[in-house]
Amino acid sequence: MSRQEPGPEIAEALGLVRGAIRGMAGYIPGLQPTPGQRLVKLNTNENPYPPSPRVIDALRRGADDSLRLYPNPAGDALRARAAELYGLSPEQVLCGNGSDEILAILMRTFVGEREAIGFFKPSYSLYPVLAGIAGARTIPVPLPRPQRASEVGALPVPAPDAKVFFLTTPNSPYGFGFPTEWIGRLLERFPGLVVADEAYVDFASQSSLPLLSANPRLVVVRSLSKAYALAGMRIGLAFGHPAVIAQMDKVKDSYNLGRLAQTAACEALADSPYLDLTRDRILAARARFAAGLAALGFSVLPSDANFVFAVPPAGIAARAVYDELLARGILVRYFAAPELSDGLRISIGTANDMDGLLRAVKEIVDAGRR
Amino acid sequence: MSRQEPGPEIAEALGLVRGAIRGMAGYIPGLQPTPGQRLVKLNTNENPYPPSPRVIDALRRGADDSLRLYPNPAGDALRARAAELYGLSPEQVLCGNGSDEILAILMRTFVGEREAIGFFKPSYSLYPVLAGIAGARTIPVPLPRPQRASEVGALPVPAPDAKVFFLTTPNSPYGFGFPTEWIGRLLERFPGLVVADEAYVDFASQSSLPLLSANPRLVVVRSLSKAYALAGMRIGLAFGHPAVIAQMDKVKDSYNLGRLAQTAACEALADSPYLDLTRDRILAARARFAAGLAALGFSVLPSDANFVFAVPPAGIAARAVYDELLARGILVRYFAAPELSDGLRISIGTANDMDGLLRAVKEIVDAGRR
Repeated sequence: MSRQEPGPEIAEALGLVRGAIRGMAGYIPGLQPTPGQRLVKLNTNENPYPPSPRVIDALRRGADDSLRLYPNPAGDALRARAAELYGLSPEQVLCGNGSDEILAILMRTFVGEREAIGFFKPSYSLYPVLAGIAGARTIPVPLPRPQRASEVGALPVPAPDAKVFFLTTPNSPYGFGFPTEWIGRLLERFPGLVVADEAYVDFASQSSLPLLSANPRLVVVRSLSKAYALAGMRIGLAFGHPAVIAQMDKVKDSYNLGRLAQTAACEALADSPYLDLTRDRILAARARFAAGLAALGFSVLPSDANFVFAVPPAGIAARAVYDELLARGILVRYFAAPELSDGLRISIGTANDMDGLLRAVKEIVDAGRR
Repeated sequence: MSRQEPGPEIAEALGLVRGAIRGMAGYIPGLQPTPGQRLVKLNTNENPYPPSPRVIDALRRGADDSLRLYPNPAGDALRARAAELYGLSPEQVLCGNGSDEILAILMRTFVGEREAIGFFKPSYSLYPVLAGIAGARTIPVPLPRPQRASEVGALPVPAPDAKVFFLTTPNSPYGFGFPTEWIGRLLERFPGLVVADEAYVDFASQSSLPLLSANPRLVVVRSLSKAYALAGMRIGLAFGHPAVIAQMDKVKDSYNLGRLAQTAACEALADSPYLDLTRDRILAARARFAAGLAALGFSVLPSDANFVFAVPPAGIAARAVYDELLARGILVRYFAAPELSDGLRISIGTANDMDGLLRAVKEIVDAGRR
């Protein structure tokens, strides 16, 4: 039976799919090179350094006969470890299969069909997809583009008529983080649940965490994919009031985090020296790269993350730079959305990666100016 | 602040939770012993044998620097491997973080608020929990308890006014599997989506798989937790028509299966000789154990799974047998639900485990008869 003309049985099956799902496009993850493709991969904000050697060791030890047994459903050891690290109680912590699952759990806990969520545009492009799955409405709030870090605290505080506001902080793809004080004002002004989606916060100097104890309407979402270099293991965390976490716990799959993921996460959180070492290298590379781009005439937004958003000099299209880089084996992120199509989001790799990238960019700019 | 009297801020936060969630109780997983507790664990249908040595080797090799990178979002290698093994195309396969996630994805794809799902009572107790999360209605259909395998094909075919019917086959906690021909009749009689939840099917002689090509309204759900001894890795699969799988794919978290889980699953599916070896041992232990229980006066239901449901002889309460076994360090499953409280669900362990259990049961029965 050809794909073009679905038979009546297939139409019948598809007719059972919820309208909200049929009508939606799925989330499109950043391009993943096929095995064997040699690319400098600076498009999905992965860490250029490997996970802590303690993590690798623990995983090799943990790959044993115990895998025949179900994991601890709540991730008790991980909750305890995270609680200790962040000065919380274990009841304030929920473990997820990546922070994407945490975000999906938040939707299912708080947002029903036809209810609304708010978020800045641009920010993490998963929120409208999750709203689509829930049959919920979206209220995107345009986010001005601050050119200096000092302008961020003066950004208008949104208060959309929504149940939940998802705040990507540090913002992606722009890179700047919202000051703790600003998030405090958001909690005052917006009466719903504030989700501080802090996937990149380990590269920033401020977080929403100090606001948690006084604000049961705040849930903080973290990821071990970026600073902890564990994108391949899928580990996310949520911090919130115990009563809120208990509601979210009802919604998660009972065994949502496998044994090895729990093991990896516990070890990663225990190795702060390694985190500090690799983060400091990335921050140094970021500073040097941003300065290099600026020297080539790019406008580089302030960044508290492991990437920068940069707009090429006048007369050179971002899309052209993306294509030229790809032709040279360097993959960065280009977004076609109108508010983003003038720039590129570039993950921070090793110093070596970034120097190579700068050389390539210089060639492209020089060629463009000729 | 005491738990008994939540402050106004907490009440405000909880007021944002969807009513469907606030009102529901979560799924209660089978008891997991704390580390160090020495128990013969026959309560959650885990495999008594370890995963294939090929899986362990591959996991140790896979625990490397590549974990800093996101996994393949679709699980392409695993889809190809599963497709080859089951005679399908990769587009007919969806990978999940355990079959629990597959079931949750099915709910989100097909069932909206106030729509209904049907399932047999008793069957997998997760379905009503998933319906609760979706704000959906449940139509439980009482399942008669066939005493012989030959009676199963004559069970009445349900046709509830529901969008999806979840069929646990082999049934849990009873253990018998529905014949392929019976599932064909269900597809004819019930006009909605039929989900054949086949977590235990590797221990059975029939499955719904032969019905797949002609029936786009059938989705088959598999798990690597039981026969493949990978409960700790969380791997589930769905098989369906490509057009249906494509809709489900939009609903899943993009990176729902980590790198090591994909590696483990590929290796496990490739090692059929190991599957056959361990399954044959379990089937032999099941036959011997069922005969032993019957000799002690138990009524043992026919089983196509790695567990049996058994009712103690008259005058001996199932709950008492459960308590006595627990006191002897043997953990089996007792369900308090009225239709199940007369029996116990006992996972099949090693021959040694089951002989020890039979000796303990004999003691308990002898003491009860004194």
